[in-house]
Amino acid sequence: MANKRKIINDPVYGFITINHPLLFHIIAHPYYQRLRRIHQMALAYLVYPGAVHTRLHHSLGAYHLMCLAVNELKDKGIKITDEEDVAVKAAILLHDIGHGAFSHALENQILQNVHHEALSLAIMHKMNKELNGQLDTAIAIFTNQYPKKFLHQLVSSQLDVDRMDYLTRDSFFTGVSEGVIGYDRIIKMLTVHKEELVVEEKGIYSIEKFLVARRQMYWQVYLHKTVVAAESMLINIFKRVKELSNNGNDSLQTHGALDYFLYEYKGGVDEEVLKKFCELDDTDFSFAIKKWSNHNDFVLKTLCNALLNRNLYKIKLQYEAFDATYINELQQKAMQRFKVDESLIQYFVHSGTAINTLYKTEDEKINILYKDGSVKDISTIDNPLIHQTITAPIKKFYICSLE
Amino acid sequence: MANKRKIINDPVYGFITINHPLLFHIIAHPYYQRLRRIHQMALAYLVYPGAVHTRLHHSLGAYHLMCLAVNELKDKGIKITDEEDVAVKAAILLHDIGHGAFSHALENQILQNVHHEALSLAIMHKMNKELNGQLDTAIAIFTNQYPKKFLHQLVSSQLDVDRMDYLTRDSFFTGVSEGVIGYDRIIKMLTVHKEELVVEEKGIYSIEKFLVARRQMYWQVYLHKTVVAAESMLINIFKRVKELSNNGNDSLQTHGALDYFLYEYKGGVDEEVLKKFCELDDTDFSFAIKKWSNHNDFVLKTLCNALLNRNLYKIKLQYEAFDATYINELQQKAMQRFKVDESLIQYFVHSGTAINTLYKTEDEKINILYKDGSVKDISTIDNPLIHQTITAPIKKFYICSLE
Amino acid sequence: MANKRKIINDPVYGFITINHPLLFHIIAHPYYQRLRRIHQMALAYLVYPGAVHTRLHHSLGAYHLMCLAVNELKDKGIKITDEEDVAVKAAILLHDIGHGAFSHALENQILQNVHHEALSLAIMHKMNKELNGQLDTAIAIFTNQYPKKFLHQLVSSQLDVDRMDYLTRDSFFTGVSEGVIGYDRIIKMLTVHKEELVVEEKGIYSIEKFLVARRQMYWQVYLHKTVVAAESMLINIFKRVKELSNNGNDSLQTHGALDYFLYEYKGGVDEEVLKKFCELDDTDFSFAIKKWSNHNDFVLKTLCNALLNRNLYKIKLQYEAFDATYINELQQKAMQRFKVDESLIQYFVHSGTAINTLYKTEDEKINILYKDGSVKDISTIDNPLIHQTITAPIKKFYICSLE
Amino acid sequence: MANKRKIINDPVYGFITINHPLLFHIIAHPYYQRLRRIHQMALAYLVYPGAVHTRLHHSLGAYHLMCLAVNELKDKGIKITDEEDVAVKAAILLHDIGHGAFSHALENQILQNVHHEALSLAIMHKMNKELNGQLDTAIAIFTNQYPKKFLHQLVSSQLDVDRMDYLTRDSFFTGVSEGVIGYDRIIKMLTVHKEELVVEEKGIYSIEKFLVARRQMYWQVYLHKTVVAAESMLINIFKRVKELSNNGNDSLQTHGALDYFLYEYKGGVDEEVLKKFCELDDTDFSFAIKKWSNHNDFVLKTLCNALLNRNLYKIKLQYEAFDATYINELQQKAMQRFKVDESLIQYFVHSGTAINTLYKTEDEKINILYKDGSVKDISTIDNPLIHQTITAPIKKFYICSLE
Repeated sequence: MANKRKIINDPVYGFITINHPLLFHIIAHPYYQRLRRIHQMALAYLVYPGAVHTRLHHSLGAYHLMCLAVNELKDKGIKITDEEDVAVKAAILLHDIGHGAFSHALENQILQNVHHEALSLAIMHKMNKELNGQLDTAIAIFTNQYPKKFLHQLVSSQLDVDRMDYLTRDSFFTGVSEGVIGYDRIIKMLTVHKEELVVEEKGIYSIEKFLVARRQMYWQVYLHKTVVAAESMLINIFKRVKELSNNGNDSLQTHGALDYFLYEYKGGVDEEVLKKFCELDDTDFSFAIKKWSNHNDFVLKTLCNALLNRNLYKIKLQYEAFDATYINELQQKAMQRFKVDESLIQYFVHSGTAINTLYKTEDEKINILYKDGSVKDISTIDNPLIHQTITAPIKKFYICSLE
Repeated sequence: MANKRKIINDPVYGFITINHPLLFHIIAHPYYQRLRRIHQMALAYLVYPGAVHTRLHHSLGAYHLMCLAVNELKDKGIKITDEEDVAVKAAILLHDIGHGAFSHALENQILQNVHHEALSLAIMHKMNKELNGQLDTAIAIFTNQYPKKFLHQLVSSQLDVDRMDYLTRDSFFTGVSEGVIGYDRIIKMLTVHKEELVVEEKGIYSIEKFLVARRQMYWQVYLHKTVVAAESMLINIFKRVKELSNNGNDSLQTHGALDYFLYEYKGGVDEEVLKKFCELDDTDFSFAIKKWSNHNDFVLKTLCNALLNRNLYKIKLQYEAFDATYINELQQKAMQRFKVDESLIQYFVHSGTAINTLYKTEDEKINILYKDGSVKDISTIDNPLIHQTITAPIKKFYICSLE
Repeated sequence: MANKRKIINDPVYGFITINHPLLFHIIAHPYYQRLRRIHQMALAYLVYPGAVHTRLHHSLGAYHLMCLAVNELKDKGIKITDEEDVAVKAAILLHDIGHGAFSHALENQILQNVHHEALSLAIMHKMNKELNGQLDTAIAIFTNQYPKKFLHQLVSSQLDVDRMDYLTRDSFFTGVSEGVIGYDRIIKMLTVHKEELVVEEKGIYSIEKFLVARRQMYWQVYLHKTVVAAESMLINIFKRVKELSNNGNDSLQTHGALDYFLYEYKGGVDEEVLKKFCELDDTDFSFAIKKWSNHNDFVLKTLCNALLNRNLYKIKLQYEAFDATYINELQQKAMQRFKVDESLIQYFVHSGTAINTLYKTEDEKINILYKDGSVKDISTIDNPLIHQTITAPIKKFYICSLE
Repeated sequence: MANKRKIINDPVYGFITINHPLLFHIIAHPYYQRLRRIHQMALAYLVYPGAVHTRLHHSLGAYHLMCLAVNELKDKGIKITDEEDVAVKAAILLHDIGHGAFSHALENQILQNVHHEALSLAIMHKMNKELNGQLDTAIAIFTNQYPKKFLHQLVSSQLDVDRMDYLTRDSFFTGVSEGVIGYDRIIKMLTVHKEELVVEEKGIYSIEKFLVARRQMYWQVYLHKTVVAAESMLINIFKRVKELSNNGNDSLQTHGALDYFLYEYKGGVDEEVLKKFCELDDTDFSFAIKKWSNHNDFVLKTLCNALLNRNLYKIKLQYEAFDATYINELQQKAMQRFKVDESLIQYFVHSGTAINTLYKTEDEKINILYKDGSVKDISTIDNPLIHQTITAPIKKFYICSLE
């Protein structure tokens, strides 16, 4: 198997090459194959019909960019051993292995207060046992325990290959050209200084472009108002189901992997929870929503039919909070229209804030290496465009109502 | 609503514009929205991870090409009334409305011996009633009853916008550049002669390219050996399920739309069957396969797990039939390995022919209009490349075995 | 000829269609064909080898975007008569007809203090005579005399099709992905309000992207330091030639169209000057530079050889002015190295400011139409990214020296 | 300089990396820079306005594909030493260094019966002297003297990177999508067997596509009838100039590099001829044609004006020879119209054959490596499409006439 090579067609980058037994093993693993059944962009396909690509596809893409980055750094004389080479690639292949059904949209809903990265790590440890420690270095890199910090930074930082791939890929599949970044140019500009990943000075315009593109993708795509409406609807469906099933009401049963989380799950993450979590994917929810569209609970049935047939909430999105009178007005209308009382109105009129909790921006540490050898954090650089992009608050208020 | 316009982002063509109430109505209809839940290329995504696009996306794309073609013909002075304009667009939006779960892969399996075009027509008639006859002209065009033959030919013929879109789109999402056609050039070359669609003489190289691209897509994609293996596995799963459920064995139940077809369906297509058919989509099968992967029937469980985790049949594909000795050898091995007897061996070793039944090629009537005003069928033209492409048999023998 | 149609392959947009006798006439005219011999981006090809596209190609591209824009506006119910339709297309085809050899690089050098738009207008008047007034409306639109202001704004304003094409095209041919704009989306967002061109509210992110892309193209391409160095060298060559020929020194003669401007031209623009100007294109300079690379004037010969063989000035580009000591140091070194005295040092060490005089940004009047019917100038909108992009000074100091 | 790296933006491939002193030296050489001033596709830009790319750009592109191919082979375990690595890259950078003004269009016209590859070799030897033998290995590879045949085959064979680049690049700049090949897939499929370059079996469809694309580029682009007409006109202009200058008539003088070939060149290639040849590029002809458009010879002036203003010959192109009557008729008409006698009619009515002498197809030795280890020449493989493409005669008769 040592010399086996496989190439995979990717519409975004052309061809992706796999050439190491450990990487083959990871990709063939049922936990990895599960990512085929999880949409990368949750319900965004209801607005962008092409956005049906999967978590598996994204993680293959990020792996491909990692291959390019590693080659580029080696070509510049940075030392990366064969073991590190395969470990950093294993780490990126597995970085999203802990994503659950409908990704970010249902994050913190199925397993409350458990972040997908913690789950990724737990699953890596599980696979590592099966593999007798072959993932030790990959895990050290993933958890930033490895001495060569830049390897971790390639997997997870402001300029990691994860972000470069998801911006590029999401832009490609949605057709939103505003999100295109010069990933190849950025990769050509990467280098290592004191074991940290830095960007050469002449790459600054590409970074500028990267930051602006990310901002645009938030507003045009990730937080597009109709996407927010669809995802709110999905969350409300799940809330209603939990509410109903808490009474032990078995009419919610799907006769599939979801039932455990409706009836048995008590919180926390142990061996059993992890096993059950890995049996769950988008299929279970998609099927359940079709099934519940015939349920006799009026709220559940109404929301499921609405999502199924794309009669989404009408939504308003704005920079200021909505005033109470306006919300009240919408609620009164909905109560009349749907003949529901106040206890259920949250399912028909729903307000909140769209904020990029989904994507980290808190620590914009992108380090620029100047020709004179000095290094500056990008947030300290005198570039008005970058400043605005970094500091501009990405938060809006929304109100959804069913009509 | 008369002036409402909507634009949809499409990664393939940029933007698709919808601007007529009838077209809005069709797109918003639950039957049309169902196409979101049917993969355009069935299980091809197991080989080409990007090929997860949907029937809905394809039919929007074909609609877009129809808009281009209609504009082009009008610009050349061909008369197309407003009513015909919207009707031919409605017809193309609906041309695939009768596709069932997993498209071609399960065609003739769920409803035996019913072609998806017959179902499309039945569903159109159903929608037409709701719409008080607004689809009359669209149906006349779809069924080739309409005097201006070229309108039907735009919807369904050797050079229809359906094929132009699926080649372009499938090529785009798989990343197989060999399938790229010059759809924009072909459309520029279309014109009408005696009410029939013809191609201007100088478009002949684009037609040549179109035919070669189609041929390449068959062998590299649609009949790619691993795709054939995956689809055989799906068909075998369904066969096994039918076999088991015929005994009234209720352990196959999915508690969803599929159950009707396992336990109640008696053949034919009546009002009820049509209703049930429209409730079914890929979700039902995907969910069922996950569920059946825990079933206690060894065959069913084995196949479902294999498909779920992408342990597909090993497959050989060749121009000659396999000889009996070789097949027997594989069967013996499988019987030993899986400890099954001869009555079940078909599920583990399976042979057949891959042939382009999925895509019509029988009647290559592409008419070329010469500058001198004469018209020739392309199959009578002295172009060796076109001849070979048209007449070359697209048939191979395959043998699948589980290992 | 009335029904003649011609399609032209364009790698950027696919196909460009010409379908009116007046437009055929313009394109076939020697003055228009002259634009084939003028590089769109002057000497930028010395940095970006793909940037060899021509003014003719750009004006065809801008014409294509005009066709899209006009169709879009008509589709939205804006009235544009057949006469206006062809006139606005003629205007955009001719908008750059007054560009001289090496475009912006030599602007104001050959004809001093004459802007290319004034020359475009003069040439349009000349063609209009030949055409017995068929360009009357086109000229009225070009000079903003036409009542429907939006037609002029399509030809010349902050969001005209000229800019949309040059950003798109220059980005395409240089391969600088940072300059990609969503021209198709911007065009879909255009509409007309009180006879003025406005952008629909939901187009605001595309405008944001457009402004950022333009900014990036300035710094990465148009004012790229090596491009500035090359264009300074060209200007210095021309200065030296003028200096030498002013003495009546006939050794500068090229025996071509350039000679008039070296020996006879006295300033101003009359019939004769215009005729001579139209005989001049990049060819004359390229040939002359090869010829002068053998001239016996040391300065001229050195600069011509340097440009010919791409031994360009070393250049520094920065936000602050260079201090006199540093400039002096470079001058001393150059005087020693090239054995020239102070009177000639300007040809070897040359400082100045790179500023976007080449491209207008002064009046950022892009009007946004809100859903409530109000219109706001984009510079008054509360969008930090747009503000910065508009107000950020685009000016740097440079110093060039030959080594 | 050892660690210097430079990246060049290429719209076709993204970025091209140069990272060796020898390669920097070659690229900076005036002989290499001369290739900037030679159009890759001669006069094809008169039909395809985007086709203005240069020989320099093509050879950089071929170099980039060589980098990919070398990496791929190394990754498969093929031994390529550091010296061979840089030599094969030097060889491909220099493979077209012997191209003269207007490339193929004027080949065999300026230096009669001297092929551009012979000139490339002569120039390489010249540079090799300057470089004290640093090009020895590159020259051995170029001339197929080097033991590892596959290195030569990468530079020059049916599947060399030269062809892969020119098809890809010419298709890109013309916008003719029919010429797109899967160069990246072909490169992934290359390997070495007994020191010869072979293609893995599963690459056969990509080869099929490559051959069909090349065929399409011949007919749609390289031998497009209007391109043939333009190039005939250029050849006729040069013929007329030679005819006139042979009499010692100094009115043809351009006062540039061309004059040597009009008045002094006696045939053959010696040191001096080579030096003069390297001073000549497209600029000299473009300038001369402008100049001669005012010459007092009626034939010369007419042809030069026609080419300058794109009033090209009307041309017919067909599979059969034209009959004498038809030719005679055209000649009579032209003699009357232009008032010229029979001795000059060849300049106004001109017939010939368009044949792909420009591009080698004689020996279609593409070797396929089968999984069982056997190797077959592609022309012996039972694939009807490939057979037709290889054997189909690429020859047509044309007749040009000025109207």
